[in-house]
Parts: sequence; structure tokens; C-alpha cells
Amino acid sequence: MELIELSKGLDTVWVVLTAAMILLMEGGFALLEAGFVRQKNAVSIIMKVFVDIVFGALVFYAFGFALMYGADAAGLIGTNGFMLRGDLSHISLNISHETYWLFQCAFVIAVISIVSGAVAERIHFRAYILLTIAMTGLIYPLAGHWVWAAGGWIGKLGMIDFAGSAVIHALGGFAALAAALFIGPRIGKFGKDGKANIVPPSNLPLASVGAFILWFGWFGFNAGSTLSATNESIGHIAVTTMLSAAAGGAACILFTMFRYKKADPPMVINGSLAGLVGITAGCAFVSDGAAILIGAVSGVAMVLVTEWLERRQIDDPVGAFAVHGVSGSIGTLAVGLFALPELASGVGRGYYGLLYGGGWSLLGVQALGLAVVAAWGFLMSWAALWLINRVVPARVSKDEELVGLDVGIHGVPAYSREHGFIDLDQLKGN
Amino acid sequence: MELIELSKGLDTVWVVLTAAMILLMEGGFALLEAGFVRQKNAVSIIMKVFVDIVFGALVFYAFGFALMYGADAAGLIGTNGFMLRGDLSHISLNISHETYWLFQCAFVIAVISIVSGAVAERIHFRAYILLTIAMTGLIYPLAGHWVWAAGGWIGKLGMIDFAGSAVIHALGGFAALAAALFIGPRIGKFGKDGKANIVPPSNLPLASVGAFILWFGWFGFNAGSTLSATNESIGHIAVTTMLSAAAGGAACILFTMFRYKKADPPMVINGSLAGLVGITAGCAFVSDGAAILIGAVSGVAMVLVTEWLERRQIDDPVGAFAVHGVSGSIGTLAVGLFALPELASGVGRGYYGLLYGGGWSLLGVQALGLAVVAAWGFLMSWAALWLINRVVPARVSKDEELVGLDVGIHGVPAYSREHGFIDLDQLKGN
Amino acid sequence: MELIELSKGLDTVWVVLTAAMILLMEGGFALLEAGFVRQKNAVSIIMKVFVDIVFGALVFYAFGFALMYGADAAGLIGTNGFMLRGDLSHISLNISHETYWLFQCAFVIAVISIVSGAVAERIHFRAYILLTIAMTGLIYPLAGHWVWAAGGWIGKLGMIDFAGSAVIHALGGFAALAAALFIGPRIGKFGKDGKANIVPPSNLPLASVGAFILWFGWFGFNAGSTLSATNESIGHIAVTTMLSAAAGGAACILFTMFRYKKADPPMVINGSLAGLVGITAGCAFVSDGAAILIGAVSGVAMVLVTEWLERRQIDDPVGAFAVHGVSGSIGTLAVGLFALPELASGVGRGYYGLLYGGGWSLLGVQALGLAVVAAWGFLMSWAALWLINRVVPARVSKDEELVGLDVGIHGVPAYSREHGFIDLDQLKGN
Repeated sequence: MELIELSKGLDTVWVVLTAAMILLMEGGFALLEAGFVRQKNAVSIIMKVFVDIVFGALVFYAFGFALMYGADAAGLIGTNGFMLRGDLSHISLNISHETYWLFQCAFVIAVISIVSGAVAERIHFRAYILLTIAMTGLIYPLAGHWVWAAGGWIGKLGMIDFAGSAVIHALGGFAALAAALFIGPRIGKFGKDGKANIVPPSNLPLASVGAFILWFGWFGFNAGSTLSATNESIGHIAVTTMLSAAAGGAACILFTMFRYKKADPPMVINGSLAGLVGITAGCAFVSDGAAILIGAVSGVAMVLVTEWLERRQIDDPVGAFAVHGVSGSIGTLAVGLFALPELASGVGRGYYGLLYGGGWSLLGVQALGLAVVAAWGFLMSWAALWLINRVVPARVSKDEELVGLDVGIHGVPAYSREHGFIDLDQLKGN
Repeated sequence: MELIELSKGLDTVWVVLTAAMILLMEGGFALLEAGFVRQKNAVSIIMKVFVDIVFGALVFYAFGFALMYGADAAGLIGTNGFMLRGDLSHISLNISHETYWLFQCAFVIAVISIVSGAVAERIHFRAYILLTIAMTGLIYPLAGHWVWAAGGWIGKLGMIDFAGSAVIHALGGFAALAAALFIGPRIGKFGKDGKANIVPPSNLPLASVGAFILWFGWFGFNAGSTLSATNESIGHIAVTTMLSAAAGGAACILFTMFRYKKADPPMVINGSLAGLVGITAGCAFVSDGAAILIGAVSGVAMVLVTEWLERRQIDDPVGAFAVHGVSGSIGTLAVGLFALPELASGVGRGYYGLLYGGGWSLLGVQALGLAVVAAWGFLMSWAALWLINRVVPARVSKDEELVGLDVGIHGVPAYSREHGFIDLDQLKGN
Repeated sequence: MELIELSKGLDTVWVVLTAAMILLMEGGFALLEAGFVRQKNAVSIIMKVFVDIVFGALVFYAFGFALMYGADAAGLIGTNGFMLRGDLSHISLNISHETYWLFQCAFVIAVISIVSGAVAERIHFRAYILLTIAMTGLIYPLAGHWVWAAGGWIGKLGMIDFAGSAVIHALGGFAALAAALFIGPRIGKFGKDGKANIVPPSNLPLASVGAFILWFGWFGFNAGSTLSATNESIGHIAVTTMLSAAAGGAACILFTMFRYKKADPPMVINGSLAGLVGITAGCAFVSDGAAILIGAVSGVAMVLVTEWLERRQIDDPVGAFAVHGVSGSIGTLAVGLFALPELASGVGRGYYGLLYGGGWSLLGVQALGLAVVAAWGFLMSWAALWLINRVVPARVSKDEELVGLDVGIHGVPAYSREHGFIDLDQLKGN
């Protein structure tokens, strides 16, 4: 047993375990979304999470990974590594390329899962499969290449996005916003006077537990992004992640008690997630105190943006944009303010936060990178849906929507209280 | 790469991963409690779990950790480490202080989550927030200091409480009992003749899965308490944990089949948890056989104490005292009987179990420590609620209780079968 | 700190964490099965999962492990290690025997959990306890000895079954088939004309999340089977596991869209699981491409076998045989075709796959081993139930079945919408 072998083994199990934790987040997304939507669409949204994980993994294996992490061409795109073949020696890690792929695969699946919530209850299943392929095979990989791959043009400018407030969450959130706009609000969501009608979430206990599972997975998401168990930031990352999530949830409890005279459960659930999203970019680089501030601001902003979207008659059933798009943006910019010299100066171009005397360089490049990634996510998601809509309808029929996608598209209800058995022929005869 | 660096990395990822597992237990508590209470209170109990995790983390960061693990004063209280600042060199570990904080933070959140179950369906939300602050900022940290911190007076006497049968579970369980007594039984729980009425749990599948998630997290709880991956006890701890949980569940299956002529699902669920609680103090120090015995006794005792509480008209909706208070006490005392010389003589004052010829020293100090911790938890929980009740009402109004806390306090039902949308103005007009 | 100590610590935490992940799969089984069965039997199936884990652990500790991994006698049976005592030095590992036991214990619990699904909604609880004892104490340990233990006769022939497509899944699946046949179909499942009636699953969101939890646990199942963190296959195993699961799910989405004109949720759920089962034998030895093929074939075969069973009037409520028996068989045989020389030639007798020029040796021994294990599982499961049925009825009464096992056997419904409390005396008086 050599030291180097042990080191490689340790890093491998660290990355495999954290990747598994991130993949478990799909169970969290499934619970969260099935709990937030109406009962008649609970299965259909979970089927979309299945699409995320199964098509996402295959597409990212076939070509998404290559476009993202293959050998760089002009700072814009990866060019090899299709099906993990070819010379990937430019990816210099203590873990194997396969192990690295698994971790990145868990990330891409998270991105498309963000989008799934915004189009819930009305996107057509076939259109969603095509959107998943576009997102995991092209849209995300290119943006990811720009920021994270060796040679990517935004990364070379010095942008810091440790675990993806911008690349994962802002991209996913703005893509979700575009998709929600393209596909339009659910029937009946907005009255003739433009006022938003509401529907109570179908299953808040499930949604809550989804949040707890996401929270668990986030430790893998953020701390695992070190890709090495001997990275000295791991403890700090885990602590900032915890504090920001707590601050997001606490802020939403207090803010909704003040604003609505009651602690609003869906807002508290999303507030914790907003705190997690917000800290994702800076978890390794900001102080504990900054983490608390980032979480609290992300939580409150999420509430306000959720209200604003309703006023604008934009229908995002689970709050994907408010949680991921907005908090992802806040978190990305916050790095420009709060990145500590002693933690951040060793990465990128050595920029650090404005508030610590680092000047405007980091904040500027964070803003630029965020703008590019968000605009790219928004425009490409819209373009993809526009193209898809020419092949298969992006939206279900009015009848299917009214009866619900579970029975309308998948032929089975989410919940059944049936005590006996149903004769299929009798059913058809009726 | 140096050996020392690798060792530190290994210990760090071990503690971070097990801390994440313990934090996932909040999802388990949420499912368990939401499944056990009536449907009309399922969200309100989960909101309390959110309070546990978000306020618990922030309070423990601000001052709870300092009072618990700061530099000792007179064996009674920690004095520095507020917001993790100051000289913490007396905490001598192979992991960073931040990593240590995260693990301890997961523990404190578990303590208050124990209490949440006993006051379910009737405590007011604002009062619960204040109780959480008291418990995670003062009550638990002080007791924890006495037993676990360097210089704590009970620890110096030689008490052994490896992962907290006393400090976590007996403290939490007796605090839960006091809270249940202070706040009184739910309306209708006991008839005019004093007989207990029953309500079937609203969602037993959720409660069961909560138990499985708690079981998973317990491996982190007990084995992670080594705080070092090279601690030779890890395998033994995991095995005694498994066997005691299995024995607790098996004992409850057989005992309820004998006593009630049916294997009683809520008792089986709580029986496994009782086994887990019981082994928490001694997991590193007792034999496999003793673990099985501890688990079985904990399970049966939980059933009998649950019955006794009902006869005494004490209303503990999820069995928090019977599971945590009673099994925690059994487990703490069992160490005094069963601690093996070869495993226990290297810790504390080197005492070991009465049954192995270690005399009464260990059993005595275990009993003393347990009595102090349990009394402290009970009295301080009562005192805290008494004080809180002078500021905000500890209990919801009768109307709120009858309609349920979900709609009454949080304005939203846990489950909705609504197919369409609701016009808010119409609602208000009616 | 020595290197050897660090290495042992690393392997220990790797195995303990992956064992915990496998044990969490019981939560996945519970959700999956409770979601698939009718609401009136949701608790009863979860109680069986409790039986799996609590009796399974105790029996495997008392004697199952000894029969499986004790010192070999004639290639047929282990002979020591009861309650982990005696000389186990023939098990030569870098982890302790206790740690090894925990991992193997998680496996045996999975085996019996496979069976639980096939007998859902009609097996009697007491009979199921006895079946669990037989399966975890004798049937599985012997088959496991033959293939996996030092000296086992099938293993000596050169069979490769890395994490148990044959030993766990085919054995469990064929035992499940025998049990389903022995116990007969549920009342009303097949009409007088022999046509299958259907019942919609009671809770598809729960079943789906069960699948995600199982998927998470499978990374522990397959990658953890290395039993060493420095095993160079870990990354590859995790990737083949991911790809095969994705291919199984994707194949079922596409195949059911083609065959039924809708993506069928229960089939998609089981398709992912089929992919996971299929890759379990070969995960360390086949290429990524082969993993995708194995997953896709397993998924489609699962759909076809599910249909075939319905036509044959065999009632397997959750698809245990189609998922575990069939995909386990496919996966075991696939090793004979696809095992790569560079990966497989170092194990067993050095055989490798037919398609890579390894000849028929490996395929032959895989087929032989599979036939033996499957036949043993089927016959012994039948024999055990036949014997059990002479002591306690294997099947509940007609009345119990019609009212449902939850109320009929366990006296409590899975779900209750009760708002207040129930007076027990009034209930009895009615």
C-alpha cells in the first residue's frame, strides 16, 4: 500500500459518495414537486424527474460531457471525450475520468430538474424529453465549459463559481423562466382580472421532506465539488452551506410572519432552498457571517420575486425561478462582494471581494459571467422549446390539462383509494 | 501529500458525511411526526422541525456552542467560541473546529426535535420558536458541557455517554415530558372518565419511512461520534447499533403480538427507535449480546411506559418520552452494567461494568449523571415554557386546535385534493 | 499514525457508510411496496419490511453468517462464526469481521425484502416471520456460501457475480416466484375468464421516491462490494451502475410509449430497478457500453415478463420476479458475454466474456451457477412455505384479505383522515 494509492482511494470514495448524495437529490426534487403541484399532476412531474435522470445520464455520457470538458476549442466548446473516449489528459485530477464524469453527471441532472418544476402541470411529456436532451446535451455543457473547463473564456476572466450558483442554478432558473413564459400559465391560474388564483399544494409533508433530502444532498453538492478529500476547505464549505440554508429558512419564517401574519410553509421550504442556492457559488470563499447574510437575503428575495411573478402573471408552479434563478444570481454576485482574500486569492485570477478591498474586478467579472450564463440559459431554453414545438406540441391539450396529466398523459392517477380490482373490459365498455 | 494531511482529510470527510446523515434525520423526524399526528396538524409539526434546524443552527452558532465547548469555567460552563471565534485550542482534534461545530450542530438539532413531538398538535408556533432558542442555546449546551466538554464536572467523575443516551435522548425526553405536562393534553384525548381516546395515525407509511431514515442517520450519529475514521471502534459501534435496533423492533413485534394479539405498527416503529436510543451511550463499550439485550429491554419498556402515560393522562402524541427519555435512561444505566473492561477501561476514569467485576463505581456515576441531566432537562424545559407563556401564549386557542394548526396557524392544509384553482377573493367573500 | 492504520480506517468507513446506504434501501423497499399495493395493505407490507430488517439481522447474526462465511465444509456450508465467535481467520480482509458482518447483513435483508413484494396483500404475518427466518438463516446463506465464500463449490468453478445479480436478485426473485405461486393470486386479481384485473397503485409518488432511494443505495451495494476504498474499480462500478439504471429507465419510457402509447409510470419505476439489478453481477467487469445494453435489455424484459405473468395468472403485486428474478438472470448471463479480459481475467479462474474471445467457459459456469441458485431459491422457498403452512396458515382468511391486512391483521389503517379522537369503548359497543 503506497500513500499515493491511499490518497487516490480516499478521493475516489469521497467523490463517489457525494455524487450519490447529489443523485439522491432527484428523490428530493420528486417529493418537492409532487407535493407542490395539484394531485392530478403528481405522477406526471415525477415522470419528468425520471426523464431528467435517465435521459440526462445517457445524453451527458454520449456527448454532453465531451462538449463541456473535452479539449477546449477557442474557449467556447469541448471537442473530445464522447462516451468518455479519447485523450482526456487535460483533465488532471487525482480521481479517474469516470469518477469525475459521475459527479458531473449528477450536476447536469440537477440543472434539468430545476426546469421541470417551472413547466409542471402543462408541458407535454414528449416535448419534455426533447428539452431534456437539449439542456443536458448542449445548453448546460456549453455554459459549463465557459466557466469551469480548462480554457473556458469566462473562467479565464477570473469568475468564481465554486459549485454553481451561476452555472447550475442561475442557468437552470433562467431556463425555467423562459420555459414558463413560452408555455404560458396553467388554465385558471390567473383570473380574468389578472389576479392570481391559488391552489393549496397537494402534499406539503412530501414537499417538506423533499427539502430535507435536498439539504442533505447539498452537502455532497458543495463539499464534494472540492473533488478531493484533502482539500482544506471541506469543513468550511459544509459550515457555510449549513448556515446559509438555516438563515434562508429563518428569514422566511420571520419575514412571512411579519408580512402575512403567519409562517408560510411553502415559503419556508423554498427559503431554505434559496439559502442553499445562494451559498453555492461562494461556499468555499466567504466567511460564516457572509454566508448567513447571503442566505437571509436569498430567502427574502425569493418571497418578493414569487409575489412579483404572480403579479406579472408568470406561472412557475414550484418557484423554480425565484429559488434557483434569483438566489443563484444573488449568490454569484455576493462572491464579488464577500470573497475573502485569504480564501479566494489562490483561485482564478486572484481577485477577491469588494468589501475586503479587492476592488471591482471580481464583482465585474461575476456580473458579466452571470449575465452571459443567465441570458444563454433563457434564450436557448426558449429557442429549444420553439424548435421542439414545431415537431411535437410543447403543451398538452386543454382536456388533458383539465383532467390532469397523470390520467391524461400517463393513464394512471397518483393516488388511488381503490379497495378491490378493476375489470379493464368493463372500464372500456363504459 | 503527507500522511498527516491524508489523515486529516479522511477524518474530515468522515465527520462531514456523518454530520450530513444526522441532519437528514430531520427528514426522518418530519416524516415520523407528520405520520403519527392527525392530518390537520401534519404541516404544523413539520414547520417545527424546520424551526429546529434553522433556529437551532443559528443559535448554536451564535452562542450555544460557546457555552458547551468553550473554555471551561468551574466545570459548569463554556466561556468562549461565540460565532466560532476566540481561542479554541483546548479542543484538540484532528479535524477543524468548524467541522467539529457542524457535527455538534447536528446533535443539538436532534435534541430539540425530540421535544417537538411531545407538544405536537397544540403548542403555539411563536412559543415553540422561543423554546427552541432556550433549548439549543442554553439548556442542552450546559448539560452537554458537564458531561462531554473538557473540564465538565460530570465527565470528570467518569461518566460514559458515548453518543448521548443521556445528554441527547434522556435530556430531550425529559424536557419533552415536562413540555407535555406543562402544555396539557390535546382536547378530547382523555374522556370525562379519564380513559384515553385514540386516533389512528394519519399516515403510517410516512411514519415508517421516517424510522428507516432515522435508522440510517443513526449510523452517522453513533459511529460518527468517534470523530476519527481511524478509531478502531467504528465497526463495533455500527454492529451494536444495528443489533440493538433490530432487537428493539423484534421485541416490540413479539411483545405486542403477545399482549395485543397483533403486531402493533406504531409500537414496532417506536420499538426500533427505542433500541437505537438505548444503545447510543454504550455502543462503543458493550458486547454484541449486551446490545441485543439493551435493545430488547428498551423496546418492551417503551411499550409499557406508553401505556402508563396514557393511564396517567399524560399526552405525548408521538411517544417522545417513552422512546427517548426511557430508553435513553436505560441505555445510560446499562453502560454501568455491561461496559467491557477491554473497551471501557481506557476512557473516563477507567471504570467498567458491574457485571464484569468493575464494581459499583461506573453504575453509580451513570445514575448520578443521568439523574442530573434528566432533572435539568425537565426543570429547565418547564421553566422555559413558564417564562415563554408570560410573553406569548404557549398553547393555541381552542378554535385553532379544533380546526387544526395547519389551517389555524399556517393557513394551509397538509393535503389538498383540489383539482382546479381557488379565487382568493371569493374565499374571503364567503 | 501509520499508513496501515489509515488504510484500515479508510476501508472501514467506506464499508460502514455503504452498508448504511444499503440498509436505507429498506426505506426504499417500504415506499416502493406501500406505493404499489392497495391502500388497505400499505402498512402490512411495511411491517414485513420491518420483519426483514429486525429478524433478518438477528438471525443472520445468530447463525446465517456462520453458515455462509464460516470455515468451509466440502464446498457446501460454513461451520463456524455463530454470533461472530470462533476462528474466522480464513476471512482475510483489511476490515474487521464485525464490519464485514454488517455489510453482509445489509445484503441478506435485501434478499428477503425482494420476496416480501411478491406475497404482498395476502401472506399471513406469522408465516412471513417464519419465512424470513428460513430465508435469512438458511436458504440464502447456503447459496451465498457456494458462490462467494472461500471454498464454495460454484465459486471454485469460476463463477463471477460481483455484487449479486444471481446470489441476491435471482435467488430472491425465484424465491419470490415460488412464494407467489404457493400462496396464490389475490382475490379478484383474475376474472373468471382468466383475464387480469388491475388496480391502480395506491401511491405512485411514494413508489417513485422508493425507487430513487433504492438507486442511491445501489451505489453502496455495488461499489461497496469492493470492500476496500483503494480498489481501482470503484469509479468504474459507479459509472456502469448509473448507466445501466438510466438505460433501464429510458428503455421502459420508450418501449411503453411505443407499446402502450403512454410512458407507463410503474413500468418506468421498475425499469430503472431492472437496470440496477442487471448490472449488479458485472458492474466491475463490463464496459460502459455493455452496461447500457444490459440495462436496456433488463428493462424491456421486465415489461414483457410482467405481461407474461399476468397472462399465466401469476400474481406478483410489485413485480418482484420480473425485476429481480429476470434481470438478475440476464445480468448473470451477460457477464459470460461481456466480461472484459483486462477487468475479469484477474478474478475467479480468469475466464472472460465470449464476445471478447474468452470462449464458452465463463458463460457456461454463469449459466450453471444461475441455474443452481435460481432452482435452490425456488424450491427451498416453496418447501419452507409448505412446512410453515403446516404450523400456521400461510395465507390470511378471506375476510381479512377483503377488509385489508392493515385493519385485518394489524388493527390500524395506513391512512386516516380522522379529525378528532375515537372513543375505544364506543367502537367496541357498536
